[in-house]
Amino acid sequence: MKKFNLLIITAIALSLMFIIACNQKDTKTVSYAEDRAQIEDLQARYLFALDFFDLDTYVSTFTEDGELDIVEYKVKGRDAIRKAIEESRAVFDHSASTATGRHNITNIVIKVEGEKAYGRSYWFHYSNDNPEKKAVFDGYGHYEDEMVKVNGQWLFSKRVIYNEGVEKWMGPTKNPAW
Amino acid sequence: MKKFNLLIITAIALSLMFIIACNQKDTKTVSYAEDRAQIEDLQARYLFALDFFDLDTYVSTFTEDGELDIVEYKVKGRDAIRKAIEESRAVFDHSASTATGRHNITNIVIKVEGEKAYGRSYWFHYSNDNPEKKAVFDGYGHYEDEMVKVNGQWLFSKRVIYNEGVEKWMGPTKNPAW
Amino acid sequence: MKKFNLLIITAIALSLMFIIACNQKDTKTVSYAEDRAQIEDLQARYLFALDFFDLDTYVSTFTEDGELDIVEYKVKGRDAIRKAIEESRAVFDHSASTATGRHNITNIVIKVEGEKAYGRSYWFHYSNDNPEKKAVFDGYGHYEDEMVKVNGQWLFSKRVIYNEGVEKWMGPTKNPAW
Repeated sequence: MKKFNLLIITAIALSLMFIIACNQKDTKTVSYAEDRAQIEDLQARYLFALDFFDLDTYVSTFTEDGELDIVEYKVKGRDAIRKAIEESRAVFDHSASTATGRHNITNIVIKVEGEKAYGRSYWFHYSNDNPEKKAVFDGYGHYEDEMVKVNGQWLFSKRVIYNEGVEKWMGPTKNPAW
Repeated sequence: MKKFNLLIITAIALSLMFIIACNQKDTKTVSYAEDRAQIEDLQARYLFALDFFDLDTYVSTFTEDGELDIVEYKVKGRDAIRKAIEESRAVFDHSASTATGRHNITNIVIKVEGEKAYGRSYWFHYSNDNPEKKAVFDGYGHYEDEMVKVNGQWLFSKRVIYNEGVEKWMGPTKNPAW
Repeated sequence: MKKFNLLIITAIALSLMFIIACNQKDTKTVSYAEDRAQIEDLQARYLFALDFFDLDTYVSTFTEDGELDIVEYKVKGRDAIRKAIEESRAVFDHSASTATGRHNITNIVIKVEGEKAYGRSYWFHYSNDNPEKKAVFDGYGHYEDEMVKVNGQWLFSKRVIYNEGVEKWMGPTKNPAW
């Protein structure tokens, strides 16, 4: 009877070991692809929110104390970010006209270090604010991002935006990626 | 002997439990990155097929009863989709000339719910239909997609295409993403 | 006592089976998303390195004997690639001027076969080499890539670059993807 009990305890101990082993393996193995997939989605949702002037969604892509840094303009915290974009409504809000403007992201470089991530990517813009609704390519620059994972969700803790069309907002000449 | 048999049965039962637990964990853990990776590939293959007028590949990116909705033109099913694109050969088929035209996708937002997925993304187009083969940026809009996983492969069950260059085909002013 | 020993051995044998089963499952399940994520990062880092004329990083995206094939110009090996890009410094190096030029990648199709991968994707270019720093869309083409995984890291073993703005460098009219 004693031997039998010992075996049952051994079996339960082994069960726990297997479950822990399996879980640890998973968590470690999937990280880069899983983190990158979520960050790519964040990056895309950010731009839809900006171009369609959806400020609730826009500010929700930042952490509560996130920073938006457009070189000359630096704001910190969701409320301040909302205020800054509100003040630029004339630039971003196309809902009152038939013209549209769209920011695009490409060349997304992402480095993940645990719950923190670093991003470098290109952005460019086009619009059709003319009587014929002709597509016009009209601006570009790059992003330098810091992101953190909050309750399993990636958010911007800092986004720096360089713009090659405005002399004061141009980026560095040294490769900002790695 | 009875105890021994009982132990063997317990061991087999535990084995099955572990295997089921491991598999369930895997399937759940890897889903978003794995699904998104396959969908991104689908989105890219769709555009190569369109721009190089490869109709077999093009229609194979849709489910058998998939829908293509270009606002004014709505077709359902692979055969109807093939017919619609065939009829627009003058727009899409560049093989007879030295000019080319290319559709690009960016800002891919994807939400996966089991075997179903929802996508929002931007598209833009450029071409070189001029004597100097000069690159001309000439159109843009956005996609609203529904995708399903059929035998482990993601396919479009519905693609709606908005075009900001044609008044009737312009998209909504409200953020179509989330 | 014999029975007891037999049971311990059985338990250990089952343990090893579970651990092997779990590991094999993991390795297999996560591959496409994990490989694609790393390849997307490689593709983006390649372009940052090129546009910011960071030759050390640029050549490090190729294997030691990697090939760069710009149709008319074909070079093999990191040293030869570095030399070829150095010789085109006037085209790529913007550090001495306030003008910038940027290559972008979209529509990334990737097929992975073990430690080897095949890529097809679009590239386009824009710049602002004018007094007003106006954004100008000025070129496009596509990439046909072969990549290999070396010590866990994906690298280009061959990149072929087609350019639709130069008659001799135009790509095929048949769909280069699948």
